[in-house]
Amino acid sequence: MSTVDAGRDASRDAWRSVWSSLAPIGRDPASGGYLRLSWSPADLAARKWFVTEARARGLAVETDRNGNLWAWWGDPAAGDAVVTGSHLDSVPHGGGFDGALGVASALLAVDALRARNASPRRPIGIVVFTEEEGSRFGVACLGSRLLAGAVDPARARALTDASGTTLAQALAGAGLDPAGIGPEPDRLARIGAFVELHIEQGRQLSRPVGVASGIWPHGRWRLHVAGEGNHAGTTLMADRRDPMLTAAFAVLAVNKEARLLGAHATVGRLVVHPNATNAVPETVTAWVDARAAEQSTLDLLVANVRRRVAERAERDGTTVELVAESVSPAVDFDAALCDRLVAALGPDTPVLGTAAGHDAGVLATAGVPAAMLFVRNPTGVSHSPAEHATDDDCVAGVAALARVLEELAC
Amino acid sequence: MSTVDAGRDASRDAWRSVWSSLAPIGRDPASGGYLRLSWSPADLAARKWFVTEARARGLAVETDRNGNLWAWWGDPAAGDAVVTGSHLDSVPHGGGFDGALGVASALLAVDALRARNASPRRPIGIVVFTEEEGSRFGVACLGSRLLAGAVDPARARALTDASGTTLAQALAGAGLDPAGIGPEPDRLARIGAFVELHIEQGRQLSRPVGVASGIWPHGRWRLHVAGEGNHAGTTLMADRRDPMLTAAFAVLAVNKEARLLGAHATVGRLVVHPNATNAVPETVTAWVDARAAEQSTLDLLVANVRRRVAERAERDGTTVELVAESVSPAVDFDAALCDRLVAALGPDTPVLGTAAGHDAGVLATAGVPAAMLFVRNPTGVSHSPAEHATDDDCVAGVAALARVLEELAC
Repeated sequence: MSTVDAGRDASRDAWRSVWSSLAPIGRDPASGGYLRLSWSPADLAARKWFVTEARARGLAVETDRNGNLWAWWGDPAAGDAVVTGSHLDSVPHGGGFDGALGVASALLAVDALRARNASPRRPIGIVVFTEEEGSRFGVACLGSRLLAGAVDPARARALTDASGTTLAQALAGAGLDPAGIGPEPDRLARIGAFVELHIEQGRQLSRPVGVASGIWPHGRWRLHVAGEGNHAGTTLMADRRDPMLTAAFAVLAVNKEARLLGAHATVGRLVVHPNATNAVPETVTAWVDARAAEQSTLDLLVANVRRRVAERAERDGTTVELVAESVSPAVDFDAALCDRLVAALGPDTPVLGTAAGHDAGVLATAGVPAAMLFVRNPTGVSHSPAEHATDDDCVAGVAALARVLEELAC
Repeated sequence: MSTVDAGRDASRDAWRSVWSSLAPIGRDPASGGYLRLSWSPADLAARKWFVTEARARGLAVETDRNGNLWAWWGDPAAGDAVVTGSHLDSVPHGGGFDGALGVASALLAVDALRARNASPRRPIGIVVFTEEEGSRFGVACLGSRLLAGAVDPARARALTDASGTTLAQALAGAGLDPAGIGPEPDRLARIGAFVELHIEQGRQLSRPVGVASGIWPHGRWRLHVAGEGNHAGTTLMADRRDPMLTAAFAVLAVNKEARLLGAHATVGRLVVHPNATNAVPETVTAWVDARAAEQSTLDLLVANVRRRVAERAERDGTTVELVAESVSPAVDFDAALCDRLVAALGPDTPVLGTAAGHDAGVLATAGVPAAMLFVRNPTGVSHSPAEHATDDDCVAGVAALARVLEELAC
């Protein structure tokens, strides 16, 4: 066996060892997908896994006021830190790589630096942001938004999950003080560079690793349709005020407007009340996820949907509200940092934009020099149990992240 | 005060006393609607209420093998019994009168007969059928269908609720033997006449009480649409196989076909998986409730929906299944029994059909001479917290039922 082969095998073994300790946490045996909603038992177990792994590497672990976890190599008080990391929560029945790949790769990148006896000049941090997916409380990137002051703490505390539990209650249940959440400008100011590694979520990469140039403007809107609950059998068709009709029309209108405008828009979540087979519903709530390359396109999309749904509601005798839940402007990652990443990884490294939101985008918007590495996704499938990256590409991702940390911090 | 006034006041007081002891059970303070899903704690409390009320009247209470409750005045073994009653379960957030009015009125009708020292020649029974709404396990009139042999016991045992609990588990949890469910022909043969009192569910009555002539053919079908779960942001519109689009189209098609054919059809229940804002769903399941005056119209409606949804699924790249969950043929209530009811209540008594299914329809289909009394619903609203009947109309319903029991049994 050559030295190169031996090194590759060792990297793959190291990757598999770390990954196999994380992968079972919160995986639903039935769907094969993950149920790591923030502050759920599965999420707490994944957080505990991170703390154990970080401490095993001699990193100093702390939880910030918003519930994000930080592990430090060096003293963060020195400032100008190089931070990497991602998140461990999942969409319901989501894939195992989204978020978790960035956290596991960060730990392994630290191992790689240690193995080559690197001595960082700048503190290196690994962060695990909470509620990145917004799957439990509805606001994507909630942990980083709170940190950055991009969401009002009082509004955040009152956010509820599907069973009516507030974020405040969930935080208190996990031993955090809900009154303490909110912006931490000092913590943010200590970050000199943030580089998040993430699985790519389209099929844009023909090589194992690429560098992200920016994020499309995007957001989620809640469409609430109210009608009149009634008996499905006895109510005359002409007497109905059925919110399901308006919601169904909205689903199709969202799709059509997105296609016409070259945008991406989706209704992936729908809640019907009372959701009984033999009852005309009282209310239907639909969530619209919309993204476009340009802010003006996104604005037009939302305006068109709003207008068409209002017209339909008039016909259906229903009332509609379309309210923004979280909206993110376009993000251009730090150009100098991106250039440095490409230089460190080789001039052939692909540079690509994405329509997916990330904590790196929130930090960039808050003024932190931020960038991202993407690891190839052979099928492009994401937010699904079928999401996948090969072991070799994951190992290449770790190597790239280690190279970047070395370039920036050492 | 005249004797008539005093009698009316006494009847109203009696009505209010019984009703006020039942009305709080399972009422959701937030919606004002009822959450009496079968075998839930609220349903068990309502059943206990019935047993207590029946025993207080000296009636002999028994639970049959399918979980239906029976209270007897006289010995049912004598046969040719006159049975009344209805159900106590509700649709989620349904009204308080649907089912419960028939049970409470039956108890009060027995009181009325006792007050006039009636001595029935035939045994009089009050039945509380279980899972009439099908809101927990999906099959409407499950208790009466099992009794009548109209549903396969093995299939019934395996029915699951929204959380995956089977009917067998729910029955065992309530102390019943799931292996024992199934037809009870001897019990059925002892019923010489079944008269169910129920709140009317349209706005067909201009008088307090009417007699039902029959029930439209009706049924519920499960439409399961499967696509490909994926990321809502990064998946190109052209690459999607989004089951939400097919389901939304189906909602609108069901409504349009019903209107074109003069039928009633509704999608009131929808389950999206994984139901995440930022994920194209993997599957969407929609339930179609459809009813028509003629069986041929109902068949055509279902065939048209099936064809149109299949065409749409082809465009969406999804697959669809449309499966009947419970289908009930047209019911003509026993003509001689209906005539006798009208004769007893007065020749001006309105006779009306209905599009709502009832346990009386299941018994009629099984060959039991059956009929129904309807109590006026001033708004026609049903399966909703806004469902309502006035105290005076409820009292008139009790008087009518007592008159009918006297006519048939004494």
